[in-house]
Amino acid sequence: MQQVNLAIIGGGTVGGGVYKAILENGPLMGCRLGTNLCITRVVVRDPKKLRNVVIPPHLLGSSWEEAVNDPGVDLVVELMGGTSTARLVILAALKHGKPVITANKALLSQHGEELFAAAKKYGTNLYYEASVAGGIPIIKVLRESLVGNRITRIYGIVNGTCNYILTRMKNEGADFQQVLTDAQELGYAEAEPSLDVDGHDAAHKIGILASLAHGFWVQPKSIPTEGIRSITKLDIQFSAQLGYTIKLLGIVKKTEGTVSKRGQKKKDCKQIQVSVYPVLIPNGHVLASVNDVFNAVYIRGDVVGDTLYYGRGAGQDATASAVLSDIADAALDLKWGSRNRVPAFVAHSCDGAVQPLDEVISKYYVRLSVEDRPGTLAKIAAILAGAKIGISSVIQPEGHQGDSVPLILMIHDASNAAMKKALGKVGRLSVVKAKPVMIRVENFD
Amino acid sequence: MQQVNLAIIGGGTVGGGVYKAILENGPLMGCRLGTNLCITRVVVRDPKKLRNVVIPPHLLGSSWEEAVNDPGVDLVVELMGGTSTARLVILAALKHGKPVITANKALLSQHGEELFAAAKKYGTNLYYEASVAGGIPIIKVLRESLVGNRITRIYGIVNGTCNYILTRMKNEGADFQQVLTDAQELGYAEAEPSLDVDGHDAAHKIGILASLAHGFWVQPKSIPTEGIRSITKLDIQFSAQLGYTIKLLGIVKKTEGTVSKRGQKKKDCKQIQVSVYPVLIPNGHVLASVNDVFNAVYIRGDVVGDTLYYGRGAGQDATASAVLSDIADAALDLKWGSRNRVPAFVAHSCDGAVQPLDEVISKYYVRLSVEDRPGTLAKIAAILAGAKIGISSVIQPEGHQGDSVPLILMIHDASNAAMKKALGKVGRLSVVKAKPVMIRVENFD
Repeated sequence: MQQVNLAIIGGGTVGGGVYKAILENGPLMGCRLGTNLCITRVVVRDPKKLRNVVIPPHLLGSSWEEAVNDPGVDLVVELMGGTSTARLVILAALKHGKPVITANKALLSQHGEELFAAAKKYGTNLYYEASVAGGIPIIKVLRESLVGNRITRIYGIVNGTCNYILTRMKNEGADFQQVLTDAQELGYAEAEPSLDVDGHDAAHKIGILASLAHGFWVQPKSIPTEGIRSITKLDIQFSAQLGYTIKLLGIVKKTEGTVSKRGQKKKDCKQIQVSVYPVLIPNGHVLASVNDVFNAVYIRGDVVGDTLYYGRGAGQDATASAVLSDIADAALDLKWGSRNRVPAFVAHSCDGAVQPLDEVISKYYVRLSVEDRPGTLAKIAAILAGAKIGISSVIQPEGHQGDSVPLILMIHDASNAAMKKALGKVGRLSVVKAKPVMIRVENFD
Repeated sequence: MQQVNLAIIGGGTVGGGVYKAILENGPLMGCRLGTNLCITRVVVRDPKKLRNVVIPPHLLGSSWEEAVNDPGVDLVVELMGGTSTARLVILAALKHGKPVITANKALLSQHGEELFAAAKKYGTNLYYEASVAGGIPIIKVLRESLVGNRITRIYGIVNGTCNYILTRMKNEGADFQQVLTDAQELGYAEAEPSLDVDGHDAAHKIGILASLAHGFWVQPKSIPTEGIRSITKLDIQFSAQLGYTIKLLGIVKKTEGTVSKRGQKKKDCKQIQVSVYPVLIPNGHVLASVNDVFNAVYIRGDVVGDTLYYGRGAGQDATASAVLSDIADAALDLKWGSRNRVPAFVAHSCDGAVQPLDEVISKYYVRLSVEDRPGTLAKIAAILAGAKIGISSVIQPEGHQGDSVPLILMIHDASNAAMKKALGKVGRLSVVKAKPVMIRVENFD
């Protein structure tokens, strides 16, 4: 039986998890793959540090250069995180012609094109199943299982922290800040939570999925992104009364439009919607019941129809499972000499661009605080009618009294620009007592 | 760019779907794979027959031998169905060293071991993603994405016809026979529905998944199988009142036990539960909301935790998507010379056996028709207590009057043998007016 020697760079949560999992299931994997997996080096910042997962001292080292350059190392598993040293590690390994596995979505999202080009140049490969949605094998599904499909829709609940917070807000009728503080104490949210709760992490992940589905690299900075800080318990409660659940959703939609890029109108430069924001999901839809830290990705292909993939999106073990799947692929590609069998990234023949937020068409939930007197609705409706924005329903939740009462409008398809402008006008009406709240509604048409 | 020449054997629903999908998405697949896919032959029973999907006459032929023997054919796609000629086609192609793709679960389930051995012997491969759960890429997920996991649980809703019937029975409060007749008229059920409604098709599929997960071939005849004919609208209604939904579930569970096989007690011959029967699923569980013809497979791995895969389990297009994924894998394996990269089946080092139904431990829902008078429950409870069977709750649904009233018992973990024996005694009590109804309950522990 052949043997593949691995260097794991990073001994933290994920690195430790991968080490532990190979220790436990390595022989079974060897039996399934027909190739032995052997960890020959684990590179950590401080080899003397006490770890939850005990790694024998003879495997530990602190120099990634030594590990990457070691001719006894066939495969480099980058699990250190960050976007500077990790980038150097990966480039150095690829330059040696060694396949690399990474779970680093921030790095891929920012430097994917450079890393993929390096893999191609040096005739090797970069594997990154663990970079999106943890234990859910979404990269392999998208690239291999759905290879015969044009992907028309992707909807992803891909940030566990946000989903945990929104689930608790709904179940407990609690405020965002209150649940966030608690989540931080429990270790479900970082001390600096912006990467998660402002939607950036979700944008990194949905950008990778959009790129794979549409064959051009989507930069995270081009993705319109809104987080969940502004979601209130009131909106969660009203949504529930209307039969909806609020989730932070990454959305990728094939649109009909083409787009001018770099000043030139290119006919076959397709435009796709890629966005991250909170949306109201009908309770009957399977994504509405994805709760707590779980992730799920809903993919519609023109051949397969609607499919869903669900699992833990983060954590030591779920991420380790995805890394192990990449290790298996890399080991098989080494064994068979099929080093670029499924390349890290394949650009399609036509280029593309992300639809600007202003052009994105959506349905909306709008919550207003209004004076409860005749004529209020007429004024609001007149503004929306003037902007050719259709109202599908108006709900005045019961049991509210005082100077201002809530008024919920459900709005038909309208562009973001039109809504923004119209709601600006609505907000300036004297009968409207607070800035209008607008959350998008997704019906999965 | 390289080219792979395909022969499609079978021009029916699935064959036509694959032809159509390659026509539409072949160039995109070629771009993604770096290999052109070219259909050079389509073998049908009657080349002159009018078809929904128009296939050019020069591709059509009626001799599978000609197609399989044609040196211009690199890859054989068997989509004719049935278990006799299809077996010959596959064996002949493998003998030529040609990789084969099939969607034929009945054939695999019955003759899998023979076909896999032939693939190995002739140094080629057999691909069968479409054989289980249609468009859900469950074979690839199980073999590749979860390769680093010991699979501890599989729960599959894998028969669309049964799921469609049960969904309508629940939504409409209708009887089995009534919905079945309607489903037959609508084309969702066959004129001879036994393969579906008696659970055999689900057993074929769950047997394949059990085999892949546990590394020994599970024969369908060894799988305890019950269908949905005996499910009444009354049981669906009472289950709903208790917070459950009834689904036909294929279940694979790693048990603690070992088993004696072929007369000998082998220590490392593991025993697994593989079974197909209707179960009550708590409504909060994601499988309870898998409705209509949709399929879903829930897999628990020791590393990844709980995951779910959902999509259309049958139909022309969903099945075509799975076949295309296999075509891509086979084409890449031809391109890279990695013909056995992921072998059709890998036996693990230890053998195994399916747990006999009598030994299967489960929770139960029991519905009795009893005389509504003091002492009835005491008599029933005494029999169960004597069999050391614990009752977790007793519910007497309201609004029933007359000679006999329904009585629902929810039963703690008990073996099938113990339950069968105890319910036999209960059924013979004079206060019990009809044969006790027993449906298993799954809590996904």
